[in-house]
This record gives sequence, structure tokens and C-alpha cells, in this order.
Amino acid sequence: MSKVIRSFEASHQWLSINTATVRRQWTLDRIIDECARREIRAISPWRDQVQAAGLQATARQLRAHGMQLSGYCRGGFFPAADEAGLRAALDDNRHAIDEAMTLGAPCLVLVVGSLPGALNGQPAYTSLARARSEVRDGIAATLAHARQVGLPLAIEPLHPMQAAERACVNTLAQALDLCDELDPQRSGALGVALDAYHVWWDPQLQAQIERAGRERLLAYHVCDWLTPTRDLLNDRGMMGDGVIELRQLRGWVEAAGYRGFAEVEIFSEHWWQRPGEDVLDTCIARHRSVV
Amino acid sequence: MSKVIRSFEASHQWLSINTATVRRQWTLDRIIDECARREIRAISPWRDQVQAAGLQATARQLRAHGMQLSGYCRGGFFPAADEAGLRAALDDNRHAIDEAMTLGAPCLVLVVGSLPGALNGQPAYTSLARARSEVRDGIAATLAHARQVGLPLAIEPLHPMQAAERACVNTLAQALDLCDELDPQRSGALGVALDAYHVWWDPQLQAQIERAGRERLLAYHVCDWLTPTRDLLNDRGMMGDGVIELRQLRGWVEAAGYRGFAEVEIFSEHWWQRPGEDVLDTCIARHRSVV
Repeated sequence: MSKVIRSFEASHQWLSINTATVRRQWTLDRIIDECARREIRAISPWRDQVQAAGLQATARQLRAHGMQLSGYCRGGFFPAADEAGLRAALDDNRHAIDEAMTLGAPCLVLVVGSLPGALNGQPAYTSLARARSEVRDGIAATLAHARQVGLPLAIEPLHPMQAAERACVNTLAQALDLCDELDPQRSGALGVALDAYHVWWDPQLQAQIERAGRERLLAYHVCDWLTPTRDLLNDRGMMGDGVIELRQLRGWVEAAGYRGFAEVEIFSEHWWQRPGEDVLDTCIARHRSVV
Repeated sequence: MSKVIRSFEASHQWLSINTATVRRQWTLDRIIDECARREIRAISPWRDQVQAAGLQATARQLRAHGMQLSGYCRGGFFPAADEAGLRAALDDNRHAIDEAMTLGAPCLVLVVGSLPGALNGQPAYTSLARARSEVRDGIAATLAHARQVGLPLAIEPLHPMQAAERACVNTLAQALDLCDELDPQRSGALGVALDAYHVWWDPQLQAQIERAGRERLLAYHVCDWLTPTRDLLNDRGMMGDGVIELRQLRGWVEAAGYRGFAEVEIFSEHWWQRPGEDVLDTCIARHRSVV
């Protein structure tokens, strides 16, 4: 068991807010202002929020506050029912990369996708093997553009309960296998976004974090697993309200060399009902006490 | 990709019904009669249903119909908050083994448990590592009794979404690691119950089924994964209504040597609302057409 290397107790300089956490309460410009007011130094915004606020306006606002990004959400969703769909996904990922560059993001987070149409309850096919093959090819093609502009791609393994609809990469080992295949030189161009919620259950977790190492650990996300969990998507817990051993997990991540932000990403019908100010204040308090 | 070795299209001689599938509709004696009427040759009953119907009465009824068991549900739930709890769990598993012997079950299915109290929303501790250690010790102790009476134990890896409350063994690889540690001679005394619902997402699945081999594959359960899935426990699908490639999976299992029953286990608020006769008739039809 590794102890954490950095203390978060005295300051929240390593706190980042994934903007989905307060997306029901506020538009992106308000989120940025509210974070800046609380000396939160980084956010990770979603593409739809950036589009609504304007890409250039958002870039200007971030610069004015001296605010960093801990990532940009998101690229991916590579599998498609046909050739036209596959090409459209690659185009969309190129746009996402360009937006991420404009915003100064350190990486583009990839939620890789899975059975096309499954999100709408109408899977065009049911072969996970085919989806995984299309994901591999999609990342390879996207990586070429990402390397040219110098933006790292971060594959996010998603919890197996989201394997049909959102991501057919479901363990850290599987994500790292893809990294080793597509970036064997460990150049830093391809790595992973490690989200505690998606991986906390994995018996291989500590060993795979060690395998990932500093070059592959591009982002670290936190929230908590509630007992009971009432919804497969939108019932994430605030750090400290569930069963994930977050200090131990951060110890493993830091032992592997990670020194970046701990990004809070909470999809929760409960927290989306609370005033945004309370949510951010609670994130700061819990970041210091339990992350 | 392996093709299935046995055809299920012309008969349902390898169909077994896990009695939880119609537990809201009927008591166990009625379930046994309804299965016998449809020439279903095997069931897998739950302990609470057996207790309600009477152990000896159930054993007599099974014999009268010449009906087999494909397993007995269930032992496990080893982790506990204190020493007294750990001892009580071992006692309970010994009773389960004795009941399974009385009923002529080929194995006792182990849902191994996880954070004690988490099922009631009050986890006594949050260390998965501790739970996994207690599970290992619990299986080792239970295996001693099981070997004496000659009843195989089948560890059932549960989907990672049930890692906090029901089972901290969440992949086939992890279950097989336990088997290798506690039964290195592959004696047949310890193996796995492989449930399609719990493992279909696993990128290592085919390789691990091959590793398991005939000696470790003690039971095979089927249902389907729905898109969307609306509940973490009770929204399983009827075979053919979801995205699991059941024929491919049975091909892998049979290539590894398995020749036992395909046991239908569906926890579903939807199917529990339907007449039991329709549920069983649908199980037979889908067993032939898609399993």
C-alpha cells in the first residue's frame, strides 16, 4: 500500500472541476467565474458547453483568469454502422483535437464508444470484437493528427456496466494494451484518463497503474461509488460518501509518477439539484479531506 | 471464433431453469411441477425457496420427477465485520453444502460477498483488499468440508457493478486465480459458475474460458444484457432481447470441454410480472433459437 506523496489538506491547488459536475446549474462562463472566485485553478469542459459559450470566448475567459484545463471532454465514439459513419467519427475527432488545442488542453479524453446505436436502444450490431477493432483503428487514425499538432490522447476505460453503449474499453489493462500497440515508444502522445469510479473494483488495478507509469497517466478523475447505486449513469457520489478508497488509489497513482490534477467528475441527479455554490464548496472540502 | 458443438435447436434437453426466474409467480413445488410438465430436466433452486417448501419434501419431489439440479444457490457471503460474523458465515456455508448434498446438486454456487453491510447501505469497512482476503480464507475453510462430502464449489464472478455489495470476485481470471491457489491439482473440487450476464464484457473472456477448461467449468448461466439497462440488479433480459453474443460464448465454453446445462437465470421486474407459464415457454423457445 502506497502513501500519498502530495498533501491536499492545506490547499486545493491540485483540484480541477469537470464542468459536467454543475452543468444543470450553470452555463460554462458562469462555471469558470465561480471556479476562479474559489481559486480553483483548472477545469475540464465538455464540447457541448464550449459550443454554447463560444470557443474563442471561452479561450479568452480562461486566459483572463489564468485558468488551466486538466483535459477536454471528449473525443471517441469511433464505432459506426457503416463507412460513412466511421469517417464522420474521425472528422469529429479532428475537430475535437483542434478545439482542445485552442483551449490549451493538456489532452483530449477519449470515451471510445461501443455498439453503434446502442445508446438509443438500437444497436446496429452486437459484436464487441468488431467494436473493439473499430476503436483501435479509430484511435490509430486520430493519433496521426494528434501527433502532428502535439495533443496527447487519453483513453478512458469505462466501467463494464457501460460496455454496450459508451465504451468497449473497460479495464486499465485493456487501455494500456492499446497504448502499447499504437505508441510502443511511450512517446507521451497516447495514454489514459484514469477515473476512480470506472476502475476502483479492478483486482489488477494497482499493478496496472504501476505498468502505466508517468508517461501514460494523463488524467486522474475522482468521485465515489455509492451503496446502493440507483442508476447506471447518473448516481455518482461525492468523494467521501461512498466506498472507494481514494487516498489509497491516489497513493498508487502518485507512486507511478503522476503529479497532475485530481479532477472531480460527478454525474448525479442528487448533486445537480443542489445550488452550484454548495457543490463547488463541497468539492473543495472533500478534495482536502478525503481525496 | 468457436462454433457450438451441441445443437440446441431440436430439443431442450440441456435447458435448466434457475428458480429465481419465476420466484414471484410460484412457490418451488409449483415451479418443479411446471418444469416437469414441459420436460425441462433440471433446475437450480435457491435456499430460501427450498426452506419454504421443505428440504426433504423438495428432494422427494425432484426424485419423483427424475429431475436433476444444475446447481444450488447459494453459498458465499464470507466477509464480515468481526470474528463472530466470519464464523457464522462458515457455519452457514456448511449447512448449504449439506442441503446441496441432500438435493443431489452437482455443485454449490458461491456468491462470495464483499464489503459487509454494504447490501444494507452500511458498509462496516471499505477495504476491498480485506474483503478479498476474507473471501479467500472463507473458501479455503469451506472447501475442506466440501471435499469431505464430495460436493464441488463453484465460484461465481459477479459483474463489477456488484463489487461493493455482493461479490468482490469480479472477473473470471480472478476466480481462476483463486481456484489455482486453493486447488492447484485441478481436482474438480473447486471451479467456477460462469454467468454470461456477469462476464460478457470482459476482453479476456475467451482466453480465460480456455484456461478454465472442463475441470473448472462447473455451471453455465444465461440471460441477456438489455440496452438500456434500467436497474443494477433486476433488469436482466430474456436471451435474444439484448446484446450478448450467446452462441459465440457457448462455442467458447464448449470448446473448453463443457457439456452441462445452460441454466436460465433472469432477475427481472418485467418477467416477474408475466405469467409463469409464458416465462417458461419463452425460455424453451429462446434456448432453442438463440442460446
